[in-house]
Amino acid sequence: MAFQFSDAALALQARVKDFIDSEIVPAQPDYQREVADARRQGNAFIVPPTIERLKAKARAAGLWNLFLPQSEHGAGLTNLEYAPLCELMGRVPIAAEAFNCSAPDTGNMETLVRYASPAIQQRWLAPLLAGEIRSAFAMTEPEVASSDATNITASIVRDGDSYVLNGRKWYISGASDPRCQVLIFMGKSDPDNPDRHRQQSMIVVPADTPGVTIVRDMSVFGNDDAPHGHAEVHFDNVRVPLDHMLLGEGRGFEISQGRLGPGRIHHCMRLIGKAEAALEAMCRRTLERVAFGRKIADQGVWRERIAESRILIDQARLLVFHAAHMMDTVGNKGAAREIAMIKVVAPNMACKVIDWAIQAHGAAGVSQDFGLAQAYANARTLRLADGPDEVHRNAIARLELARYQ
Amino acid sequence: MAFQFSDAALALQARVKDFIDSEIVPAQPDYQREVADARRQGNAFIVPPTIERLKAKARAAGLWNLFLPQSEHGAGLTNLEYAPLCELMGRVPIAAEAFNCSAPDTGNMETLVRYASPAIQQRWLAPLLAGEIRSAFAMTEPEVASSDATNITASIVRDGDSYVLNGRKWYISGASDPRCQVLIFMGKSDPDNPDRHRQQSMIVVPADTPGVTIVRDMSVFGNDDAPHGHAEVHFDNVRVPLDHMLLGEGRGFEISQGRLGPGRIHHCMRLIGKAEAALEAMCRRTLERVAFGRKIADQGVWRERIAESRILIDQARLLVFHAAHMMDTVGNKGAAREIAMIKVVAPNMACKVIDWAIQAHGAAGVSQDFGLAQAYANARTLRLADGPDEVHRNAIARLELARYQ
Amino acid sequence: MAFQFSDAALALQARVKDFIDSEIVPAQPDYQREVADARRQGNAFIVPPTIERLKAKARAAGLWNLFLPQSEHGAGLTNLEYAPLCELMGRVPIAAEAFNCSAPDTGNMETLVRYASPAIQQRWLAPLLAGEIRSAFAMTEPEVASSDATNITASIVRDGDSYVLNGRKWYISGASDPRCQVLIFMGKSDPDNPDRHRQQSMIVVPADTPGVTIVRDMSVFGNDDAPHGHAEVHFDNVRVPLDHMLLGEGRGFEISQGRLGPGRIHHCMRLIGKAEAALEAMCRRTLERVAFGRKIADQGVWRERIAESRILIDQARLLVFHAAHMMDTVGNKGAAREIAMIKVVAPNMACKVIDWAIQAHGAAGVSQDFGLAQAYANARTLRLADGPDEVHRNAIARLELARYQ
Amino acid sequence: MAFQFSDAALALQARVKDFIDSEIVPAQPDYQREVADARRQGNAFIVPPTIERLKAKARAAGLWNLFLPQSEHGAGLTNLEYAPLCELMGRVPIAAEAFNCSAPDTGNMETLVRYASPAIQQRWLAPLLAGEIRSAFAMTEPEVASSDATNITASIVRDGDSYVLNGRKWYISGASDPRCQVLIFMGKSDPDNPDRHRQQSMIVVPADTPGVTIVRDMSVFGNDDAPHGHAEVHFDNVRVPLDHMLLGEGRGFEISQGRLGPGRIHHCMRLIGKAEAALEAMCRRTLERVAFGRKIADQGVWRERIAESRILIDQARLLVFHAAHMMDTVGNKGAAREIAMIKVVAPNMACKVIDWAIQAHGAAGVSQDFGLAQAYANARTLRLADGPDEVHRNAIARLELARYQ
Repeated sequence: MAFQFSDAALALQARVKDFIDSEIVPAQPDYQREVADARRQGNAFIVPPTIERLKAKARAAGLWNLFLPQSEHGAGLTNLEYAPLCELMGRVPIAAEAFNCSAPDTGNMETLVRYASPAIQQRWLAPLLAGEIRSAFAMTEPEVASSDATNITASIVRDGDSYVLNGRKWYISGASDPRCQVLIFMGKSDPDNPDRHRQQSMIVVPADTPGVTIVRDMSVFGNDDAPHGHAEVHFDNVRVPLDHMLLGEGRGFEISQGRLGPGRIHHCMRLIGKAEAALEAMCRRTLERVAFGRKIADQGVWRERIAESRILIDQARLLVFHAAHMMDTVGNKGAAREIAMIKVVAPNMACKVIDWAIQAHGAAGVSQDFGLAQAYANARTLRLADGPDEVHRNAIARLELARYQ
Repeated sequence: MAFQFSDAALALQARVKDFIDSEIVPAQPDYQREVADARRQGNAFIVPPTIERLKAKARAAGLWNLFLPQSEHGAGLTNLEYAPLCELMGRVPIAAEAFNCSAPDTGNMETLVRYASPAIQQRWLAPLLAGEIRSAFAMTEPEVASSDATNITASIVRDGDSYVLNGRKWYISGASDPRCQVLIFMGKSDPDNPDRHRQQSMIVVPADTPGVTIVRDMSVFGNDDAPHGHAEVHFDNVRVPLDHMLLGEGRGFEISQGRLGPGRIHHCMRLIGKAEAALEAMCRRTLERVAFGRKIADQGVWRERIAESRILIDQARLLVFHAAHMMDTVGNKGAAREIAMIKVVAPNMACKVIDWAIQAHGAAGVSQDFGLAQAYANARTLRLADGPDEVHRNAIARLELARYQ
Repeated sequence: MAFQFSDAALALQARVKDFIDSEIVPAQPDYQREVADARRQGNAFIVPPTIERLKAKARAAGLWNLFLPQSEHGAGLTNLEYAPLCELMGRVPIAAEAFNCSAPDTGNMETLVRYASPAIQQRWLAPLLAGEIRSAFAMTEPEVASSDATNITASIVRDGDSYVLNGRKWYISGASDPRCQVLIFMGKSDPDNPDRHRQQSMIVVPADTPGVTIVRDMSVFGNDDAPHGHAEVHFDNVRVPLDHMLLGEGRGFEISQGRLGPGRIHHCMRLIGKAEAALEAMCRRTLERVAFGRKIADQGVWRERIAESRILIDQARLLVFHAAHMMDTVGNKGAAREIAMIKVVAPNMACKVIDWAIQAHGAAGVSQDFGLAQAYANARTLRLADGPDEVHRNAIARLELARYQ
Repeated sequence: MAFQFSDAALALQARVKDFIDSEIVPAQPDYQREVADARRQGNAFIVPPTIERLKAKARAAGLWNLFLPQSEHGAGLTNLEYAPLCELMGRVPIAAEAFNCSAPDTGNMETLVRYASPAIQQRWLAPLLAGEIRSAFAMTEPEVASSDATNITASIVRDGDSYVLNGRKWYISGASDPRCQVLIFMGKSDPDNPDRHRQQSMIVVPADTPGVTIVRDMSVFGNDDAPHGHAEVHFDNVRVPLDHMLLGEGRGFEISQGRLGPGRIHHCMRLIGKAEAALEAMCRRTLERVAFGRKIADQGVWRERIAESRILIDQARLLVFHAAHMMDTVGNKGAAREIAMIKVVAPNMACKVIDWAIQAHGAAGVSQDFGLAQAYANARTLRLADGPDEVHRNAIARLELARYQ
């Protein structure tokens, strides 16, 4: 790669890779068995002992909270330095959590680092950084196109010394996890503000506050993704103290813009990891299986797809590195175009590569045995999460057209 | 449509549509509730009372066994006449079964009609035609590329007055259904025959024969598709009487070629029904939701997709009608090219249209609420079932190239 | 084909095919030599003797004016019956003209049959039907998006006993042909009419009227397409008698809508003919050439493309037949959706198939020797002529969305 | 860009850009007029005075021979440093030649620098470096798939103190240029060598050697590309002295592999320049034109395409920079995979972006006025030149699969 990494960064990549290979990959089946056993007993939303064991080991090894650029709490890595670690983690479903680097906790921790009062940080950020609790981010609503934040209908109304929250949210990832103790909630505190980007606020909500109800677990392409999950959560007259407001009333949109950049690097790099794993599986499978007298790998259409996969992956990685470098050098706002671009590129690339890998596997490709169908579901969902492709393409086009207006 | 239907055929279409709208659509939630309740109690592989109630009504209404062209047992419809009924059934997941027209029973009944002895027909065909039992078709193997039938490793060895079957099969749809009482099994009875298409045989296996074990249920994109399901089934020294052999030893490949044609018309037309339902959902959703100040339906990219969907669906339907007409007039063999073409066209078309519908729905699109993710999983799987796209494209190309050699 | 043709229609297909094979194909090189010689002498816009010879033969054989449904002047064919003849003509560049069936004369003759006064018909339609003169249709303007007819800026102003025409038109196909003696001109006679579809008129303009100037010849992808060509024509105070107005002032849009339907069938079927020819060339070339030790036809990606080409062509043909059948049975207006659909499908299909054929030929594919680059230029241009894809997709989507509003 | 350039490199970029904007862009119409005038007089293969004037100015400004990494003759730039200059040149058709940086002279000069004897260098390299003569590279043959060098049929036979060459070559770019005085010819000197990559040799051929005949000019998509052109050249018993052999008999394949790397960087970066120009044209045109009541730029599908264009271009540029960096750091051989990847990516990307720009322009897009059709023809041809996409994808796949074998 033309993007140069320091010796320290390279050494860290090696350590993370080694930890994943030697500790996490062998533990993945244990984890899956624990969840499957729990599912058979009627509730898959458990804390699998394996993940807690891995977390303890990773923390002891100093491989912990590797995200968080520009913060004393993190590992002191730039976005560019952290990016290849995300790719490594992306290859194995449970890896990111083992390093306390999984969404939405990462974004929530970043938000709390930047915008929460010391008391709130003490109460919620500290145990999150320690990996003792988990968190959720309550933004998406079933009733409106939430990619346009001005559509949000949930309300935050000040009433004496507290805010009262009402609203229906869904696809609240992680809310069903038994360790989830806190949510960040987005709602409208000033719905009539003529500036439509000043109507929203973000506020911290303890998960056990009365009125917070997990209604059901949503699935993605048939997967419940337990024990993490994607809950539908209703907020009925939920009362939260005033100091739980983040940054200030009316600044929710501003926070949401700021938190998206790093999260997109993470998501995109993990997808690149998944795509690399899928390409490897595609190569191995087509080398291994024979149809109509020849190895499938020797049949031209598969070589075209393997080559296209390599091209798509390498181009996506270069673009994400470039975006990370921009964020590190000119800031999230200056990198807005690049961040929008990777949000379009990486999930679409991953969908295409994983879909080809599925096709190469035949029925095995859509099964529970090879992880490909699940990876596809994940990649496909990321064409929608944080705003659908169309919204990001529109943003990119607006910037491009502005050069000639 | 330029394809003309008789008044009787049009009247039957109207009756089927009316039955679906008035009886099946309202019952669909009951069915889903019955399965969900069973799943919570630990076993979703039940017989939902709703489907049996619907079957009784449909049979009483004379809407029963509408498939089976050229057989006294069916409704006397040509493939072309039956095709639009399949499209209607495809829109609602449980509709085909209500009319006793669902796979793999339809293909199995056709096979038994054509190739089974009167005794076997009496024993298994009769209750299948009556909708009293269900059946499975055991062909695909986990260890080899089964799209090339010569790869099959399961064995059928004659031993005295019985055949002994051994092999591992998976994705055996319907085998986990409690009503499944019989399987048709494909294996090699003559693995050393120099003619590689004379090595295979097909044989009828009662589901309760010792040595037949349902090992587990395979999922497709995370869905177990209970209570129908897709089982992994092992056959260990399964003994079956000699008269259970279909057509004769070594003629399994021949049977498999013959059974595929009508089944593909059915699958493809049901996918067209699903795609039409997805397009309707795409239109309704984009008309209903607003983002960035305008209805989504008024944003150009969605109009492009809606138009492309209409074009793709209409072209696919014309092609399937054309293939059905060819089957009716020049036979399955003469329509080989057309049958291969629809097998490529319909699932790819459905994947594209349903994927756009998912995208139009945002998170709701991948959820369990709108049926789109499940429809996608189904369409995607049909790019693999009965042979992957690549195998069929290869067959089409071979026929095309042969014109110039 | 499921679309049934009468014995008479089939016999006519056979005669047209035979005439093309035995008379036109052998003459094509003569025609090309005549044009090339003329080009070397400085002016390729000549009347090649070969085409006049072919026309005389075709007329003598009764293969003449095969278009013109519902008119005493034509061959009495329905749109559906004429469609396969267009496909046959499409395979050979000069075939349509040999049968006096080439654009824009066909559309102009139809327009004159329907909307011109007997005097105008006598003066211009008769020699066109006899193949003695040619004609042009002056609609597209360089300054505006002409796909939206309300954008047209050319003017038609009544002044005493004549109309005065002003405007710049380009891509006026056939205007540079030495035999072109008449144009149909579209302009605004009532630019302030609140009904934007009543502002335009169409009027007949003798080519030698003072003020009509051929400014230059436009090229398409580098081809001047002489001797037919695509001229830029300026109209400066061109005076035309009142009776040259077609149908009546303000009815130009209405005429333009009516004339498009049959023309699209013709264009689309000719493209299908070109695509079939390209597919045949692709098969022959890949069978003939060897690279890296194997016939190119035996390399998987080419089989995929050959199969896809067959699928795309057959689907397009069925759709055009279907549209033609609709026009024959429910009229051009009732078939509006289908006509828009074929206008999108056929040129895109042809571009894809011809592009693959080019790729299969290597450098030969882009050369002047195989006709593929020229066929591509033609197909690509038809994604723009008569309105770009986007306009037609928008029309299709509008009809689809209207079902749910 | 994350790829860092030195201040000197950035300054050079600015000077090249400034020279193009201030000198070349204004002169482009003069050049075109000179060629058009010559064409009207019957021979467009002239030396346009404008280009010689520009060359003199560029040379005087020190903007000359900017290619040639690792050679005293060049500007001392690395491949990565030269790449952005190529992009700038790519935007304007005649720019590369003005800087004496146009193909095939650049590749030929590189070949002569590396592999020619001092005498040959004195005779041919010196005037090429001075921009006094031009050259051609005679490899492609009409009769075989030349992308597989082992297919080549041209012969080089030693006969006493000379080699005798025979063969038919076509698409020999630049051979028709009146300044072309030398060709490099590829043929088989040892056709029976069991090592198929030792059969070929490359040899220098003075253009005026008896037996060298320019038979005709080949066109690409209808363009003759005069005065550069793409000639068909026949070699009939052409006698060349022994010392004209490059590197040694049997080493032609080795030379051809070496010369391709830098040339691909150049081609790809020029295509990126063309794509950027097309995207700018797409933006300007869609902002300027109105259809159906709205600016075309405000219609969603165009925003999707503008955004996709920006994404495709930026990804392609990053990949080419990456490949150039690899070549600079690990050599052409070590960068083989990356060089193959850009050869696939850049022409396909450019075809897509330019095609969209054509579509945005309507008929103007395919005309001679906007340069888009010509740019498309150029980009499309580069999907074939130096080997078709399929050959490069195959090479990439082979490297990928090798990791698992």
